[in-house]
Amino acid sequence: MPSDLYTPHLQHTLDIIGIFVFAISGGLLAVRKNFDIFGIAVLAQVTALGGGVLRDVLIGAVPPAAFTDMWFFFTPLVAAALVFFLHPEVERINKAVQFFDAAGLGLFCVTGTIKAYAYGLGLVPSAALGVATAAGGGVVRDVLANQVPSLLRWDEIYAVPAMVGATLVALLIRFDEFNATTGTLSAVVAFVLRLLAIRFEWRAPRAWHRSSAAKESDA
Amino acid sequence: MPSDLYTPHLQHTLDIIGIFVFAISGGLLAVRKNFDIFGIAVLAQVTALGGGVLRDVLIGAVPPAAFTDMWFFFTPLVAAALVFFLHPEVERINKAVQFFDAAGLGLFCVTGTIKAYAYGLGLVPSAALGVATAAGGGVVRDVLANQVPSLLRWDEIYAVPAMVGATLVALLIRFDEFNATTGTLSAVVAFVLRLLAIRFEWRAPRAWHRSSAAKESDA
Amino acid sequence: MPSDLYTPHLQHTLDIIGIFVFAISGGLLAVRKNFDIFGIAVLAQVTALGGGVLRDVLIGAVPPAAFTDMWFFFTPLVAAALVFFLHPEVERINKAVQFFDAAGLGLFCVTGTIKAYAYGLGLVPSAALGVATAAGGGVVRDVLANQVPSLLRWDEIYAVPAMVGATLVALLIRFDEFNATTGTLSAVVAFVLRLLAIRFEWRAPRAWHRSSAAKESDA
Repeated sequence: MPSDLYTPHLQHTLDIIGIFVFAISGGLLAVRKNFDIFGIAVLAQVTALGGGVLRDVLIGAVPPAAFTDMWFFFTPLVAAALVFFLHPEVERINKAVQFFDAAGLGLFCVTGTIKAYAYGLGLVPSAALGVATAAGGGVVRDVLANQVPSLLRWDEIYAVPAMVGATLVALLIRFDEFNATTGTLSAVVAFVLRLLAIRFEWRAPRAWHRSSAAKESDA
Repeated sequence: MPSDLYTPHLQHTLDIIGIFVFAISGGLLAVRKNFDIFGIAVLAQVTALGGGVLRDVLIGAVPPAAFTDMWFFFTPLVAAALVFFLHPEVERINKAVQFFDAAGLGLFCVTGTIKAYAYGLGLVPSAALGVATAAGGGVVRDVLANQVPSLLRWDEIYAVPAMVGATLVALLIRFDEFNATTGTLSAVVAFVLRLLAIRFEWRAPRAWHRSSAAKESDA
Repeated sequence: MPSDLYTPHLQHTLDIIGIFVFAISGGLLAVRKNFDIFGIAVLAQVTALGGGVLRDVLIGAVPPAAFTDMWFFFTPLVAAALVFFLHPEVERINKAVQFFDAAGLGLFCVTGTIKAYAYGLGLVPSAALGVATAAGGGVVRDVLANQVPSLLRWDEIYAVPAMVGATLVALLIRFDEFNATTGTLSAVVAFVLRLLAIRFEWRAPRAWHRSSAAKESDA
């Protein structure tokens, strides 16, 4: 039951690209964590497919596309093999993880929103599921690698680009302006926002720490 | 498909209260972990909605209420905003997390059991899902914040109050004595049990550590 | 909707044995982590049932068998009680965890593949879900206990035995040679492979660490 907002072919192509770049980010983190080739393959799989599987389970689209579409299944393995043989020098891996992760974030916040909407959800929950699709894979990746998800860390602006991208898509659908071009633009906006946030080290405010905490931070 | 054990309105009100207090507990933990405003919002959301979404996915009630009911979606954001501006001094946050978490635990072990029963599960699995609903959000919260869930730590009595509350509800249903009053009482029992366990530092027995371990603990 | 590849009775018996041994492994890890009796029970439950629940949610078999079959629900509690009273000396627990975990891995990669296939999935996704069923419970166990899953660690060969077992089953089905004997043999192959991997400390290759990393490992 693909959305007719995109042609099925375009939707599928974008999904595969998103899966590929997320799988690269998962595989690279596995390299940095010193996992072996199977750990690399598994982390590539769950990072690439985790967000979409989460969304599909939540909207009742089971079995998830990840288990019925061979492209979804094998693309992360190709990405894992590439990472295994061609990963960059270790000190550059973090940057590469972030770059590919940003690309996946942009693509998935758009395609996730569209698919949820195509399954009959309202615009707000569709956008929320778009964010969950975009962020879910990375959260699973970070939890399995035993680190606090980028999604939550104060020194990362991660949720915002996905929220912006998903909200743009919801607004475009609302005002009947969604098409391949505006959808792709939304993905690019989210992608670029995330890259800018990394490049310029944007930070969001943290809660005001009163008394003891204030003293700590004064010290 | 709301249960007719509670009126839909009462069930909904209790759900919203439970979501609110759990969201407060998630938001406060995010403050303690130094997450930014978006991390606070996300952790409030997953803590508040995680248990219910888990239950809904398991009983096949998809999309979960969290994605179709705007109250469910926005209540945690209100809670997150409150926490952001009004959180207590840092050294008091732990106590506040525990208090609100206990309130959510009490409410959700009751409403979770009822909803599972309303979907046709038996009394034992309904009570188990009540416990999962009550404990699930906190587990997701703790896993994302990279700490061992309270549910499992030996220095916490966490599962027991939820089990007592859910079992009470199952027994009340079994003997046809479930109504708004007895249901609310069950929630209060679980809530008070949890608070007493914290206040008096109740502990459950750990496994008997033989030989080497025994020696260690003798030392 | 049990598979007719095994008789329902045999399938059920194997499931219960798998649940029992996985529950033992979860309970023992809980003992090592110093959790109390309820933590032991909970970790036994999620380890034993996690993989199967994951598979059932993904193939749309909700509520999962874990919530409708009393054997599934109570077997882990029996295992938890056994662990509580009879666990081995602490220094031997790790070995015992690994032994029982290996037995569960072998059984579940077979029964998981069969059940997914019985629900209409293709052979490749069925095998993938077999691996997920086998590995899922252990991953949830390790994530809750706040350690990197064996599935991913480079010093463990964990995924491979499950992949071999699940692939054997898929091939047996493909060539119409699946029966109780060949199925059980597949489980034994996976089990023995995992034990051999532990005993002889087999390792899989890690990614080639260039420059800085290479220097590190030379040092």
